[in-house]
Amino acid sequence: MLAHPRIQSALQAAVSKGEAAGGPPQLGAAIRHAVFPGGARVRPQLCLAVAQACDEDDPALTDAAAAAVELLHCASLVHDDLPCFDDSALRRGLPSVHSAFGERLAVLAGDALIVLAFQTLAIGARQSPERLAPLMALVSQGVGVPFGIVAGQAWECEPQVVLSDYQRAKTGALFAAATMAGALAAGGDARAWRAFGEWLGEAYQVADDIRDVMADPTVIGKPVGRDHALGRPSAAREQGLHAAIGRFDQLVARASESVPVCRGASALRSLVRKESERLVPRAWLERSALVAA
Amino acid sequence: MLAHPRIQSALQAAVSKGEAAGGPPQLGAAIRHAVFPGGARVRPQLCLAVAQACDEDDPALTDAAAAAVELLHCASLVHDDLPCFDDSALRRGLPSVHSAFGERLAVLAGDALIVLAFQTLAIGARQSPERLAPLMALVSQGVGVPFGIVAGQAWECEPQVVLSDYQRAKTGALFAAATMAGALAAGGDARAWRAFGEWLGEAYQVADDIRDVMADPTVIGKPVGRDHALGRPSAAREQGLHAAIGRFDQLVARASESVPVCRGASALRSLVRKESERLVPRAWLERSALVAA
Repeated sequence: MLAHPRIQSALQAAVSKGEAAGGPPQLGAAIRHAVFPGGARVRPQLCLAVAQACDEDDPALTDAAAAAVELLHCASLVHDDLPCFDDSALRRGLPSVHSAFGERLAVLAGDALIVLAFQTLAIGARQSPERLAPLMALVSQGVGVPFGIVAGQAWECEPQVVLSDYQRAKTGALFAAATMAGALAAGGDARAWRAFGEWLGEAYQVADDIRDVMADPTVIGKPVGRDHALGRPSAAREQGLHAAIGRFDQLVARASESVPVCRGASALRSLVRKESERLVPRAWLERSALVAA
Repeated sequence: MLAHPRIQSALQAAVSKGEAAGGPPQLGAAIRHAVFPGGARVRPQLCLAVAQACDEDDPALTDAAAAAVELLHCASLVHDDLPCFDDSALRRGLPSVHSAFGERLAVLAGDALIVLAFQTLAIGARQSPERLAPLMALVSQGVGVPFGIVAGQAWECEPQVVLSDYQRAKTGALFAAATMAGALAAGGDARAWRAFGEWLGEAYQVADDIRDVMADPTVIGKPVGRDHALGRPSAAREQGLHAAIGRFDQLVARASESVPVCRGASALRSLVRKESERLVPRAWLERSALVAA
């Protein structure tokens, strides 16, 4: 799936902000490497799709919200790949940031991306300054402590973890921030869109577990079997592959049902259907049934 | 010097935000360890002092700005202490965050502190929402790329570095953000306060170099001689100790001269005098003269 040109151009604008002459060139290059070419841009696309469903009236703010969410996602990938976490040499089929630029620049690139995300929000809120504080509150909750993606990653450092708490924070929180930020950037009611983001986030996490077991490494661009190797909680490992695929379908259905009444509801549901087939092709259900038999 | 009670209480409020039941407890503890008991709180005190000199009209926003600046400073210390940078086991006389909680929680605590800083700004801007975007722009510039403290740290990864560029980004940028944010939070003209912050930041960096050579480790609470061991640019090493102390005095004088005309100007100058004596006691000038002779 090609990323929406609006998203790529919003990300280009954001990353360029940090690249003025006179800054440390390697850090600039590491940041660019972390953001481009990028993956499926699922979160910013969700943000955009929700804003459009809410009849967006401030496209610059929608773009800023979408870019901020993706920059924060990229920051988390850079830090998750570090030697002290996943020690992953590859990301999206290319060297991870610490493989290409060293561990120090990877730490700093992640930090700079978090700052850039908030900076991008502030710049984007010029036409609707009254939406900035609630947007920042939403985005911060999706990323920080106690329930955002940073907290989710921290559950991997705790001796005991409830799988649903871990997944809700590690993935669901930023999905919920993406859908709610899309609504809020468009002047809509953020709370009505929380459930949609949370179900999708949970579905996405289960899909990731399934793909960790099933997918061809040349397709998803990172080493597979990492969850197992790292002893991380995984739905596909704990419940079995066939049950995990059933759970994924259920979560996608709940997400679709939770879309609030709005003009763009059916277009959104169709986007969800397409995205879920991309993540977990129907054919895998049959393969997993054979394995379970 | 005891930290201003307003600062400690603003920091307590900010850190508590991240500690709701149900979050990962070790990450919460690591964040608290990074912020308390804390050091001299120089940056937030500057922020407060400038706001007061500008007749602050929104103390909640001043507090938020001061806390945000200090949280970002704490985040940078946690990451600078990591094994891939300074590998410092001690900070302020206590185990550094990665010594106490491990490298993974140190990375995450730094990330969470950056998010918390911006979240704190958003919460504090309730009475003056129109000041939020410019405040965020200021603070982001002081921290991010291309000229903030993250960029400053990244200069240590470059093969060639101009000492003044390095110091301006590594220390001066957040000092300038602190003074400008204090003015802006009080409804004043941020630009008029940039020079004051920049001169003080440069003075503080030179003082740090001098203290790295001179100070008793039991006084400053971290291993000394680290700049030398790490091969980092240092005014005290490049120019000699006596010249560095002369440079420090010159920078402090320039800072004092740059205070804009305002009701609190003389109180501010007196604060600068006290702080500079705390950092580089007059007695050191005589000792360094003996060494140079």
